[in-house]
Amino acid sequence: MKELESKLKEYAEYLKEIEHYRTAESLMYWDMTTGMPENVAESRTETMSFMSLQQHNLLVGAKKQEFIKFFEEHIDDLDLIHKRMLTEMKKEYDKQKIYPEEFVKEFSLAAAKGQLSWEKAKSEDNFEIFKPDLEKIVELTKQSIKYRGYKGNKYNTLLDDYEAGLTVEKLDVVFNELRDGIVEILNKIKNSKVKINNKFEGKEFPKENQERFCIELLNTMGFDFKSGRMDESEHPYTMDMTNKDVRITNHYYLNDFTSAMFSAIHEGGHAIYEQDIPDSLDGTGINKAASMAIHESQSRFYENIVGRSKAFCNYLYKEAKKEFHNQFNHVTKEDFYKIINKVEPSLIRTEADELTYSLHVIIRYEIEKLLINDKIKVSELPTVWNEKYKEYLGVEPKSDKEGVLQDVHWSDGSFGYFPSYALGNLYGAQMLNKMLKDEPHIYDEISKGNLNSVHQWLNKNVHVYGNLYDPSDLIKKITGEELKAKYFLKYLDDKYKEIYKY
Amino acid sequence: MKELESKLKEYAEYLKEIEHYRTAESLMYWDMTTGMPENVAESRTETMSFMSLQQHNLLVGAKKQEFIKFFEEHIDDLDLIHKRMLTEMKKEYDKQKIYPEEFVKEFSLAAAKGQLSWEKAKSEDNFEIFKPDLEKIVELTKQSIKYRGYKGNKYNTLLDDYEAGLTVEKLDVVFNELRDGIVEILNKIKNSKVKINNKFEGKEFPKENQERFCIELLNTMGFDFKSGRMDESEHPYTMDMTNKDVRITNHYYLNDFTSAMFSAIHEGGHAIYEQDIPDSLDGTGINKAASMAIHESQSRFYENIVGRSKAFCNYLYKEAKKEFHNQFNHVTKEDFYKIINKVEPSLIRTEADELTYSLHVIIRYEIEKLLINDKIKVSELPTVWNEKYKEYLGVEPKSDKEGVLQDVHWSDGSFGYFPSYALGNLYGAQMLNKMLKDEPHIYDEISKGNLNSVHQWLNKNVHVYGNLYDPSDLIKKITGEELKAKYFLKYLDDKYKEIYKY
Repeated sequence: MKELESKLKEYAEYLKEIEHYRTAESLMYWDMTTGMPENVAESRTETMSFMSLQQHNLLVGAKKQEFIKFFEEHIDDLDLIHKRMLTEMKKEYDKQKIYPEEFVKEFSLAAAKGQLSWEKAKSEDNFEIFKPDLEKIVELTKQSIKYRGYKGNKYNTLLDDYEAGLTVEKLDVVFNELRDGIVEILNKIKNSKVKINNKFEGKEFPKENQERFCIELLNTMGFDFKSGRMDESEHPYTMDMTNKDVRITNHYYLNDFTSAMFSAIHEGGHAIYEQDIPDSLDGTGINKAASMAIHESQSRFYENIVGRSKAFCNYLYKEAKKEFHNQFNHVTKEDFYKIINKVEPSLIRTEADELTYSLHVIIRYEIEKLLINDKIKVSELPTVWNEKYKEYLGVEPKSDKEGVLQDVHWSDGSFGYFPSYALGNLYGAQMLNKMLKDEPHIYDEISKGNLNSVHQWLNKNVHVYGNLYDPSDLIKKITGEELKAKYFLKYLDDKYKEIYKY
Repeated sequence: MKELESKLKEYAEYLKEIEHYRTAESLMYWDMTTGMPENVAESRTETMSFMSLQQHNLLVGAKKQEFIKFFEEHIDDLDLIHKRMLTEMKKEYDKQKIYPEEFVKEFSLAAAKGQLSWEKAKSEDNFEIFKPDLEKIVELTKQSIKYRGYKGNKYNTLLDDYEAGLTVEKLDVVFNELRDGIVEILNKIKNSKVKINNKFEGKEFPKENQERFCIELLNTMGFDFKSGRMDESEHPYTMDMTNKDVRITNHYYLNDFTSAMFSAIHEGGHAIYEQDIPDSLDGTGINKAASMAIHESQSRFYENIVGRSKAFCNYLYKEAKKEFHNQFNHVTKEDFYKIINKVEPSLIRTEADELTYSLHVIIRYEIEKLLINDKIKVSELPTVWNEKYKEYLGVEPKSDKEGVLQDVHWSDGSFGYFPSYALGNLYGAQMLNKMLKDEPHIYDEISKGNLNSVHQWLNKNVHVYGNLYDPSDLIKKITGEELKAKYFLKYLDDKYKEIYKY
């Protein structure tokens, strides 16, 4: 046993080394997106790719293999946490080991380059600027599937990276039910006589006020500013280095404070999850989220289930009116609730309403499947994108900036990620169903701006486990059931029925 | 020749690796001082020291020795730049390699302990707390001289670390002349009837205005914001990662805008030097400043010779008045010029005026020599310190906090560093003398806020060489003479004679 203890300590030290490199790479990325001097661009991508390579080398090194061998030999002496540690380290090792060093370097460099050219392409509204880098990234992604192999659909390999065990075969079923349900509700809303007028239109919300308001909101949520900060970037995101350093970014639009507000709540949901991962999981490698979709379940829980609820609206309205005085003239609480829940098929995913959001995700999922299975080329992306938007949402982008260039994800090769967003909605609603059984009066607290019980429930049921369970096991542990689309659809129907009186 | 080229390329790659680690460590330090969440503190120092260790391991590794061996064998084929590269890499390698590992550890531990006890001693205003650790650090410093050997004075070995080739024998002559000259001018000022009244006292300068004003100043100086940025920290400093990423920090005092203004100009001088190091020196290791003192010559040239000149004051006054309207009521341009050039012997080096500053430095130099040559004991430091302040400056610290405990330098064993500060003044004035011969009308341009010719001259004569020459050779190359005190003394006398009418 003494030998095991000493080996576990040794493994923790080894993980710390990897964490040092990851911290360096992450901080460089954060810096790159929040204000790095522009002439650094070229060398920064090189330095980040170097740091990434060091992590890779450690992850696939002989030392890792020795650790695995040792822990496998002592598997009967391992507790639950360390058994999971071993499972995950084997899985990660096998996945990483499969790529040649040169390939990892090439991918990392391409992703870093893609990030920059995507930003430029988006700001200049010109897909051609991004196209060559994206082609390279797609090519390398397909190459990565060749290295790793696949069962059934090629895309399964990518899906598995973000949601262990999920397949196109399963997901198609869930997403079809989801799409049909949403379209049904959407049609009822289209036929509704209730029209929501955005009374904020034409008003201006100074950046300083928006920023202060978002900081207050994050404090209300329980985001710990001693273990994090909020900065400005082109696209809001959450960067976790350790549970003591979780950074949110936000983006401010002068004419719409609700965008930054919901970004803050959304990223805050991600960040609180990361900050809540217990120190007791340090040194095991499972001190991280269960999956991307579980991560999204937390951000969307805060953004939508809490943030767009009638209860929280009570608090939000009061606070927002304090910060933006005149802009709230002639806007009642009821107006405000309707405005933030207005359903209107639109072009930008991150600004989509709660109902149509999942359709944006399904479009991306379908396009990714087509790309990865060689059914379309990168050069066809803008066309295919626009066609699908017209077909599902009834809207058509006038430019690539509000079309195919809107999301950061493809620029760093995160194919397979998008489905997590919609899965997050499903997990979240299923958790809500259980939460309301455990805490029937929780909406009363929410309406007073008290989110402590929400935070505690999520902490106790989700955050505290880190990556101890696969997401499919976690949702069963929490709710007693496998993932289902019905809870989310029921939640949506109840909500919009009341608003649109259909 | 092909073999040489390929080895040079290989060496450049090796240096790049070290640079990646240095960039990571530097960015982490910058982040730590400009807004890192407070709970990160502990892990950040660990991560930084990890990055530092990686650099050290590369610097003293077998690979480095192989490079040296190869280049020594091919020395006749090396050009000027690569000959210098070889000299410097040998010097650095020998210095790092000469100490037994146990000694390096001991020194590093003593320095870490010294930092902590110095901080405590300073905050509690009690030298006794720091004394035992300082005794250890001094003992180890002497030990380090034993390992490395010395010629003439023992202190020469320490001086050489910061100013290659400089000796006590040479420096005593220069500093004695400087000290006597400054004391003479100081006495004349003390007897002058001109009294300068700081008309800004009691006024407030909002931070936003100070920040904007400093950014404008940096633009005027030629600081390239595409290759750098300015942030806020407790103490102003310049962080160079590469010549494309040079970051300045500043600190704002609500009641004194001249502090941030001169910090911006000072750090701007350092930063422009770093930004100007040519890319052509990349991959040689000599793509850096010639020495600490040459670095200080640039910051002090901008801060004092330009920044506190009557000519630039013409521009500064006009611009500052635009930014701070009411605060300039009843402050004439002449008042402004006198306020920023007021001489007043004081206790704290970092707050000293241009004239007395060098006396603070000479006191530290004299004390360091005494310590290293066993002429005084650590326990005698407070007494010797206070005596020297009384003798040269006519002021006497009431406590060790504003006396011997004020500077961080001894607590981490940086003996030999202090002289650089005063040498910077001397180099700068000697350069000015030559600059005025080359560009007789330069003050006319300066008075219009046009610093292009200043920047170009410094670039052409100093910056462009990086570390191609030892500082003693560089100053001879630029001015045709060895370092002399007379130029700085003449500059000071001309200036203060006019202000204080002695």
